[in-house]
Amino acid sequence: MSEDKALTKKSENITDWYNEVVQRAELADYAATRGFMVIRPRAYEMWEHIQSDFDHTIKTKYKVKNAYFPLLIPESFFKKEQEHAKGFSPEVAWIANTDEQNRLAIRPTSETIIYDSYSKWIRSWRDLPLRINQWCNIVRWEIGITRLFLRTKEFLWQEGHCVYANEKEARKEALQYLKEYAKLAENLLCIPVICGEKTQAERFAGAVNTYTIEAIMPDAKSLQMGTSHYLGTGFAKSFGIEFLDQEGKKQLGHQISWGFSTRLIGAVILMHGDDKGLVTPHALTETKIVIIPILIKGREEQVLNEAKELEKSLKSFGAFLDAREQYTPGAKFSEWELKGIPIRIEIGPKDLENKQVVLVRRDTLQKQFLPRKELKETIKKELKQMPIDMYNKAKNLQESLITKVETKEQFFAESKQGRYLFVPFCGLPNCEAEIKEKTGLSSRCVPFDSKPNGKCFWCGKEKAKYTYFAKSY
Amino acid sequence: MSEDKALTKKSENITDWYNEVVQRAELADYAATRGFMVIRPRAYEMWEHIQSDFDHTIKTKYKVKNAYFPLLIPESFFKKEQEHAKGFSPEVAWIANTDEQNRLAIRPTSETIIYDSYSKWIRSWRDLPLRINQWCNIVRWEIGITRLFLRTKEFLWQEGHCVYANEKEARKEALQYLKEYAKLAENLLCIPVICGEKTQAERFAGAVNTYTIEAIMPDAKSLQMGTSHYLGTGFAKSFGIEFLDQEGKKQLGHQISWGFSTRLIGAVILMHGDDKGLVTPHALTETKIVIIPILIKGREEQVLNEAKELEKSLKSFGAFLDAREQYTPGAKFSEWELKGIPIRIEIGPKDLENKQVVLVRRDTLQKQFLPRKELKETIKKELKQMPIDMYNKAKNLQESLITKVETKEQFFAESKQGRYLFVPFCGLPNCEAEIKEKTGLSSRCVPFDSKPNGKCFWCGKEKAKYTYFAKSY
Repeated sequence: MSEDKALTKKSENITDWYNEVVQRAELADYAATRGFMVIRPRAYEMWEHIQSDFDHTIKTKYKVKNAYFPLLIPESFFKKEQEHAKGFSPEVAWIANTDEQNRLAIRPTSETIIYDSYSKWIRSWRDLPLRINQWCNIVRWEIGITRLFLRTKEFLWQEGHCVYANEKEARKEALQYLKEYAKLAENLLCIPVICGEKTQAERFAGAVNTYTIEAIMPDAKSLQMGTSHYLGTGFAKSFGIEFLDQEGKKQLGHQISWGFSTRLIGAVILMHGDDKGLVTPHALTETKIVIIPILIKGREEQVLNEAKELEKSLKSFGAFLDAREQYTPGAKFSEWELKGIPIRIEIGPKDLENKQVVLVRRDTLQKQFLPRKELKETIKKELKQMPIDMYNKAKNLQESLITKVETKEQFFAESKQGRYLFVPFCGLPNCEAEIKEKTGLSSRCVPFDSKPNGKCFWCGKEKAKYTYFAKSY
Repeated sequence: MSEDKALTKKSENITDWYNEVVQRAELADYAATRGFMVIRPRAYEMWEHIQSDFDHTIKTKYKVKNAYFPLLIPESFFKKEQEHAKGFSPEVAWIANTDEQNRLAIRPTSETIIYDSYSKWIRSWRDLPLRINQWCNIVRWEIGITRLFLRTKEFLWQEGHCVYANEKEARKEALQYLKEYAKLAENLLCIPVICGEKTQAERFAGAVNTYTIEAIMPDAKSLQMGTSHYLGTGFAKSFGIEFLDQEGKKQLGHQISWGFSTRLIGAVILMHGDDKGLVTPHALTETKIVIIPILIKGREEQVLNEAKELEKSLKSFGAFLDAREQYTPGAKFSEWELKGIPIRIEIGPKDLENKQVVLVRRDTLQKQFLPRKELKETIKKELKQMPIDMYNKAKNLQESLITKVETKEQFFAESKQGRYLFVPFCGLPNCEAEIKEKTGLSSRCVPFDSKPNGKCFWCGKEKAKYTYFAKSY
């Protein structure tokens, strides 16, 4: 149940609002293990829907197969790819009581342990492409305040790892998985995203290119929703992933890796939630409808019977009847609004007389009085419309948060206003480090269609590309 | 591809045979991390089928919900339930670089970390029963020789954790999940199991009762396929899982936990495999059929076209055509027998003339020549029959391995013959320790219908119950 204290308003303090919604809507809890989270059933169900949708896509469209690799990685493996080691070593948790010569790391990502296996499995061009995905838990010993779903020491994710015979194929597929991420975000989660490439400073440790999808959140911060990396032949060199090509010549494999995590759940909460609580895209929940009977003395039985009939007839939408006697209808409205059930149906004595029901969509909170016999059709129509409306609402909000700027002065001024900035940038790590230090903003991505025809707002270099800058989650 | 060296015969050395099948059939690999395994796609697919079958059952029949709890558990939690701590502490892997006051354990099972959350979530009888399940990885620092799927430092499993208002309900549901495990083993995996209770010595650390399903393997060893524990109120006391009952009185929750792991895959391999390799119950694989064209010079195109037609028409069975030119049909037969594809269809020029195909069931290896037009019906019929035949074959083998004995002398003699023993036993830990030391056998389970009307073969005590003894995996 929701607590008595009113929820903080999203517009007033989105951080507090988020923490309250996550906990009161029973999505996640802080765990006794500091920095860790408990993903509760209401949120885990969202993850299951995300998993099953994406899993189906990669298996059927791209012949990706799932596998499982060890949680613990020998330290020596980590060190084989230098850039990778440098990037991840501050975040690694180490095992104490190991009988190994070298320490064991809890995986912060699995490139190294997976590519060791690949080096044994790949011999010939006939073994390529090799496409394997793993659903697993990840530990990164990040410092800073824990934010459920968004910044925790452990999270769940998928990581795809593929090997190809040449660069062209590898790059093509790296972009193809990014495109699937964008579809997942936009169609399933109703969150519009920007697709593009990371600058050198923001690239995955060990990658040649990192492609990303970024979502603008209501506070104008950027939330990275998924990344796909072209790794070149660096890991293949370090781990000995070689194959004989059709001419019998030894070649290095070209590799990609791609992943998204349970932070997507955080994105859904932040993007769609409102002052009443969670708004769930209905594709993420089995329970799309709650039926609430308005029980007035003397008419209870009649209303309850009708409500039970309704529940039965709406089973295919996962409808459930909240017949608890100890709560008022008002308290029930609040509870299920907080928990984000997509549609509420109310039925009381008056509705019985008029052969009608009341339908309330969670995203708009608008009431419709419907003839009972039109209910099913209306539900279908609304379930079709809701994702479109949620997407468009998010899109409008996001667009209102972007400002295009050209100069340092504009950049400073607009960043102080908390805007999501679009600015010509040279892409050099030195400039980026200075910008981050002075403004707290980092580059989020260079859209694929950005042309090198600008002048860097920071250093004035020519051939700068329009790039998004924002604070990030 | 299979290697050139012939597979060890199962009857000659089942240990070597098992290791060879697991690796050559690409089911699993030893990992670079010592004691860990890589679950390869062919075996991971089996796990996915097991997961989806069982997940569906517990969600729809018992309203169990999935959630996810932290990988790492504070040491202080571990110590709260003494028996539990004693049982698991030798197997725990500890984290080195923690910022916590006390060390963190990688979960060897999750009772403690989960019950800490339960103590916060449960307030009233209305919150009960609480039924949550988690699919996750587990680490137990077991010493001894690594056996892929059967004994590795990490494995995957499900662990269900439920709380009830009273003992009766708790015990009833503990048995109910055990029954579902038995159904899973028998119907999906085609492995007959013995259901019963563990003796005190073999009980889960912290449990009042441990129920188990045990499968007799071809070498007369016992493989524990799943367990369900009635935990009483011990954990509830240690973690403060209390609720107000309908009279407003404080009560302790009665708890159960239940789990099975990826060792089920090991059981499938051991039980059904033969000298040619893996035999997969077809419910565990998408690819139920391989089509192998017999290509004879001059007729290749015709045969290949026909084979492609066949592949298309059998898509619903996940049929795939092995059209590789570099291998002979014989080499292909061997490879897919090794990898356990349930049905093979051969088609050559002669078959075209006779409008027939050849069908070979992997479990029997018998050839059938079928009119082409009867193929689909025959496949359906065989797919229905195969699980029954595999189950019966396993059942017959298992029964032939059991010997009922009454005395110490018989027990010694028969255990030396490598038999699976059924014997009246007092159930006392001291006797069991002596038996284990002298014979290497431990009690596997006391069947539910065993009556306390025997005389213990070891100590002579009355009221002994017939109990199974065997070496165990």
